[in-house]
Amino acid sequence: MNHSSNEPETESIEPLRYLSKSEVGNIETELLRDYRFGRQQLIEIWGHASAIAITKAFPLTSLSKKQPTVLVICGPEQNGSIGLVCARHLRIFEYEPTIFYPKRSPLSLHQDFTVQCEKMDIPFLSYLPTEVQLINDAYNLVIDAILGPETEQRDVKEPYSSILLTLKQIKIPIASLDIPSGWDVEEASKDGINPEVLISLTAPKKCATGFSGKHFLAGRFLPYDMQKKYELNLPEFPGTECLIEL
Amino acid sequence: MNHSSNEPETESIEPLRYLSKSEVGNIETELLRDYRFGRQQLIEIWGHASAIAITKAFPLTSLSKKQPTVLVICGPEQNGSIGLVCARHLRIFEYEPTIFYPKRSPLSLHQDFTVQCEKMDIPFLSYLPTEVQLINDAYNLVIDAILGPETEQRDVKEPYSSILLTLKQIKIPIASLDIPSGWDVEEASKDGINPEVLISLTAPKKCATGFSGKHFLAGRFLPYDMQKKYELNLPEFPGTECLIEL
Repeated sequence: MNHSSNEPETESIEPLRYLSKSEVGNIETELLRDYRFGRQQLIEIWGHASAIAITKAFPLTSLSKKQPTVLVICGPEQNGSIGLVCARHLRIFEYEPTIFYPKRSPLSLHQDFTVQCEKMDIPFLSYLPTEVQLINDAYNLVIDAILGPETEQRDVKEPYSSILLTLKQIKIPIASLDIPSGWDVEEASKDGINPEVLISLTAPKKCATGFSGKHFLAGRFLPYDMQKKYELNLPEFPGTECLIEL
Repeated sequence: MNHSSNEPETESIEPLRYLSKSEVGNIETELLRDYRFGRQQLIEIWGHASAIAITKAFPLTSLSKKQPTVLVICGPEQNGSIGLVCARHLRIFEYEPTIFYPKRSPLSLHQDFTVQCEKMDIPFLSYLPTEVQLINDAYNLVIDAILGPETEQRDVKEPYSSILLTLKQIKIPIASLDIPSGWDVEEASKDGINPEVLISLTAPKKCATGFSGKHFLAGRFLPYDMQKKYELNLPEFPGTECLIEL
């Protein structure tokens, strides 16, 4: 897939493509409408792969706190649900996630993922401490599952603007799912949050070009035809791994 | 979880439990009704884990045929859909699955999984050769995703009884998903098919007690409370693996 078919002798590897906002939308529409993937199915795949990326970036044995605590902040839409699934799998992997989910989605699709976490005894915070030190002391890292590429980043509203302000001040690492919340899909933000880890889902977005932290590509299921159509030039995933570090 | 809490000095490991038919039903009902798992989500988890089990039991490099062909036979209900998801992931893992799915489910849940395979250019057979040698020659193995524990095994109807008769004659290995098709959930069959590999999903069923082939437990997501309630005594899965060989 990655080889130029016209040059059998020099294996020229085409570079990985970084998607525009409209391409992200088109790919998702095609997956749902033409390939008949279900949202529940995709959210499960992405959340599971995100949890595995977290275990690679922050292995249990590497955590500095006594307890393997992780704060997962979930937004109101799909990115938030991916965060919920990620938290659930982290619990299975013996981390201790706590969820902050300030505005719950009215959709039963998202509510189901919430109940799964509640019934697994994952604690939900009723508010985020504004005292940054409390967050630094309590958790090893924060997972940012607040806003995904589906959200228009220009007008981030409350409570998310305050949350992002808090995240800009914390000292513990942030791992963002799909895109760093508050960033434009197509452009890195200079005054936004500054995640140490970015977990791009299915394909990286333009804002991740030049990302200097640890960058994972997670979620390995995209039909070959779509990879070709969008000229994604995805790297070869090792073995049966659902992710790769870029 | 596996340790008896009353004997802190001698770590007595309780044996893995093998489930009765009613326990299988109760666990599934509880997952769907109380924990609000979705069928689409569970089928994806189980199918993905099954595909990984196949790659462990039959690594690409171990296959004797020139092409990494696999025949996946899918039944009309949930077990069949798990087979469809397994086939899709095997394609992603660079196997060459072919699907035989003689009676397609009328439920859109199952149809969606079918479309995903069709759109990934996985070929569907229109009939199963009765000439056993043709199957032996064309495929490295057969994945039996025909009948699961949800089906009453006593009265296996056509076309499945003929298919099982064919499977009893083939020389290539069979890998069964959840239970070997045609077996009773609670008892091993002496005159049924004889799979080399059994991939028990979530917890093994009674019929798998004493199974002499390669036995995997796949699908790692069961909430701890349910593991405790049903005294499953699941083994510890290594790292982030979604399966373990028993």
